[in-house]
Amino acid sequence: MARLVKKFGGTSVADLDRIRASAAYVKQAVDEGHEVAVVVSAMAGTTNQLVKWCTEASPLHDAREYDTVVSTGEQVTVGLMAIILQGMGVPARSWLGWQMPMITSGVHGAARIEDIDVSELRKRMGEGQVAVIAGFQGIGPDNRITTLGRGGSDTSAVALAAALGADRCDIYTDVDGVYTTDPRIVTRARKLDRVTYEEMLEMASLGAKVLQTRSVAMAMTHAVRVQVLSSFKDTPGTLVVNEDEIVEKELVTGLAYSRADAVVTVYGMPDRPGTVADLFSPLSEADIIVDMIVQSQAPHKDEAEVTFSVPESDLARTQEVLANHRDRIGYQSIEVNSDVVKLSVIGIGMRSHAGVANIMFRTLADRGINIRAISTSEIKVSVLIDSEYTELALRALHTAYGLDAVQQQDDRA
Amino acid sequence: MARLVKKFGGTSVADLDRIRASAAYVKQAVDEGHEVAVVVSAMAGTTNQLVKWCTEASPLHDAREYDTVVSTGEQVTVGLMAIILQGMGVPARSWLGWQMPMITSGVHGAARIEDIDVSELRKRMGEGQVAVIAGFQGIGPDNRITTLGRGGSDTSAVALAAALGADRCDIYTDVDGVYTTDPRIVTRARKLDRVTYEEMLEMASLGAKVLQTRSVAMAMTHAVRVQVLSSFKDTPGTLVVNEDEIVEKELVTGLAYSRADAVVTVYGMPDRPGTVADLFSPLSEADIIVDMIVQSQAPHKDEAEVTFSVPESDLARTQEVLANHRDRIGYQSIEVNSDVVKLSVIGIGMRSHAGVANIMFRTLADRGINIRAISTSEIKVSVLIDSEYTELALRALHTAYGLDAVQQQDDRA
Repeated sequence: MARLVKKFGGTSVADLDRIRASAAYVKQAVDEGHEVAVVVSAMAGTTNQLVKWCTEASPLHDAREYDTVVSTGEQVTVGLMAIILQGMGVPARSWLGWQMPMITSGVHGAARIEDIDVSELRKRMGEGQVAVIAGFQGIGPDNRITTLGRGGSDTSAVALAAALGADRCDIYTDVDGVYTTDPRIVTRARKLDRVTYEEMLEMASLGAKVLQTRSVAMAMTHAVRVQVLSSFKDTPGTLVVNEDEIVEKELVTGLAYSRADAVVTVYGMPDRPGTVADLFSPLSEADIIVDMIVQSQAPHKDEAEVTFSVPESDLARTQEVLANHRDRIGYQSIEVNSDVVKLSVIGIGMRSHAGVANIMFRTLADRGINIRAISTSEIKVSVLIDSEYTELALRALHTAYGLDAVQQQDDRA
Repeated sequence: MARLVKKFGGTSVADLDRIRASAAYVKQAVDEGHEVAVVVSAMAGTTNQLVKWCTEASPLHDAREYDTVVSTGEQVTVGLMAIILQGMGVPARSWLGWQMPMITSGVHGAARIEDIDVSELRKRMGEGQVAVIAGFQGIGPDNRITTLGRGGSDTSAVALAAALGADRCDIYTDVDGVYTTDPRIVTRARKLDRVTYEEMLEMASLGAKVLQTRSVAMAMTHAVRVQVLSSFKDTPGTLVVNEDEIVEKELVTGLAYSRADAVVTVYGMPDRPGTVADLFSPLSEADIIVDMIVQSQAPHKDEAEVTFSVPESDLARTQEVLANHRDRIGYQSIEVNSDVVKLSVIGIGMRSHAGVANIMFRTLADRGINIRAISTSEIKVSVLIDSEYTELALRALHTAYGLDAVQQQDDRA
C-alpha cells in the first residue's frame, strides 16, 4: 500500500472521454490498495479562454478578479472528475483551494504556496476516499482565491505530495516521459528511465517543457519522487529522483534548447574600469535578467564591446533602458538579434568528468557553427548559436554524446 | 441617495459587450450617488453546458459536485463584471457565495437561503465600492458550494436586497417589463407600470416567465420593491409593489397561460364515500401535485368519474401509480390528455368585484371553447382548455377584460 498523488494536465482532462480515461488510472491504483489524491488542471483550452476574457475586459485588470475568473477552469474539472470516479464505484470528493485550505501568499496571479492543511484529506484518504483537488489555486490572506501562475498545477501536485508525505507524485501529460532531447527534432532521442532533480531542473529551465521549473525545485527541496508519464498510453514514464537512486551515471543526460533569448552587442564603450557596471546596473534596476555575457576588447582600439543575452520578451525594454542611459554608459552603437537559440547539454556526470564542454565546442566547430556566447554551471554547458542551426546542432550533439537510441530491428519487423 | 440592488440575467451578461452595457447602468446609478450591489447570472448558455457535462459524466451525479461545477458560471461573470466596472473608474469587487457568506440549507442543487452576512458589504458600499455578487450560489453547512436551483439568481438578488434594506431591486432581463399577457400572442398586450406581489406571484406560477416564483414570494415577505426592466433599452420597467402603492386597481391585471399541465380522467369508479380519497392518497404519497379536480356522477349509473390535472412531467408516473392501485381504487378505465393549456385571469380587483369568472366563461363559450376544469383563488380564475384554442382564447379574453392597448396613431407616423 502506498500513498500516491496523481496529477492530470489539460490534455488529460480535455473532455469527458479523456477525464474517464484518466479516472481509470486512479481506479486502478485504488483497486491495488493505494491511497490516492488527484490533482487536476483545467480542460485544455479553458484557461486560455478565461485569460482572454479578462484581458479583453480590461488590459490592466485587477489580479484578484483575474484569479476569481481563471480558477473556475480547475473547479469544473474537479467536480466532473469526482462525479466520474463515483460513477466507477470509487468514493471521491472534490476540494477547492479555499476548502482544504491551500494557503498561499497574497500575490494574486503568481502566488506561492505557504501551507496546506491536509489533516481532513489524510483522514478521508485513510478511509478510502479519493481526494480530487483543484490544481493551480489557493486562498490568500485576504480570503480571496489566488492562482499560482501558468502551469501551477504541477506545483500544486508536488506541494500536496510533500504535505501528504506521498510515496510518489505521478504527473500525467501528453508525452510519455522525459527524453534525452526533443524527439520531434532528433528521431533517435531516447526516453530516460530516471533523471535527477538537478538535471530535470536544468532541463526544465533550459527549455524542456515537460515539467514546470518551480515544481521540480519544490520536489527537490522536499525529496518528492516524481514520475512523468502519459495518460494516453499505459507505460512507465520517467522517474525524477535523488542522485543516489541512479546507479549508472551518464556523462550527459540530455540536451535542451530554448528560443526565448535574444542577444545584444554593445559596441564602442570606453575601455576603463566601471564600464561593465555602468552597462548592467540600469538593466538590473529594470528587473531585466541578463544571462550570458561575453566581454572583449576591440582590436587596436581603446574600446570595449560586450555581448549579452536577455529574455526575448525583455528585448524592447532592454533597448529602451540602454538608450536612456547612453550618456552614462558611453557606447557608440548597439546591435540586437533575436534569431538565436540557446543549446544546453546537461548531466550530473559532468561533475566528475572533464571534456564535456570540449566535445560540444568541437562538434559545433566541425559543422561550421559559430558560438556567440557560452555559460556553464556544475552540471550544464549552454551555448548561444544562430537559430537556423538548431536541428543540425542538436542531432550532431546527440550523437557525439552517445545518446542515440539503438535501432531496434524488431521494431520494424 | 438610495441603496439599490441590480440583477443582470444571462442574456444581459451574454458576452463582454453585454456585460459592458450592463455595467453602464451600474455606473450611471453610482454617478447619481446611489450605493449599488450587483447580482449576476452566468453568461447565457454557460449553465446549460455545465449541467450537460455533469449529466454526461453520470446521470446520477452527486449534487455536491454538480454545485461545484455549475456555480463556476456566475464566478466567471462576477470577476469580469468587476474588471469592467473598475475599467470604467467604478470601484468594485466580486463576492462569491462562500465569501460573504451567503449561508444556505444543505440541499445541494435546490438550497434555500438562510442567512446573508452583509456587514462587510454594507461597510464597503458605504465607502463607494460596488459589490458584485455571484447569484444562484451559497455555502452549505458542510462548507461546500450550494446552488439555489435554476433561476435562483432572482432569489439571490431579492434576498440580498432584503438583507441590505435596499430601496429597490432592479431585475434586468431581455423583456422590458411585465405585460398584461404574452405580447408574442396578443399584439395589443400592454406593459404594466405596476403590479402587486400577489398578482405577480400568480402570474409567475401560472406561466409568465419574467420572474421566478420563489423570488416574488420572498419579495412579498420582505416587502422588497422590485423593478423588472430590460438591459437592452433604457426605459422604465414594471414595479412589483405592495397593494397600497397601486392607486387605481384594475378588475383584471393580466392573463397567464401554461402548457405544463396534463389532464387525467378516471372512469367507472364505485360511487361511494372514500373513492376520491382512495384515488388521491397514492398520488399524494408519490409527491405528485394534483391541481384542478372535477368530480361528476356518470348519468344513469352508480358510477363516479373524476378529472384532474397534474404537471405534464409527472404524467407517466401518475399513470404508473394509478395502475399499481387499480384494485384499491376500483376504476374501469383512464384517459389522459397532455394537449391542454391552463389559462388564468389574475387581478386583485376580483376581491371586490363579482362577475370576473362569468366574463371568462361567457367569452370562451361564445367562441365554442370547452372548459375541462376550473379552479379559483381570491385573485385568479384558471380554466383548462384544449391547447389548440390558446391564442384565440387569450386574444378574446384580453379584449373582454378591457386590457387591450389603445392604438397609438403616432406610433405609425
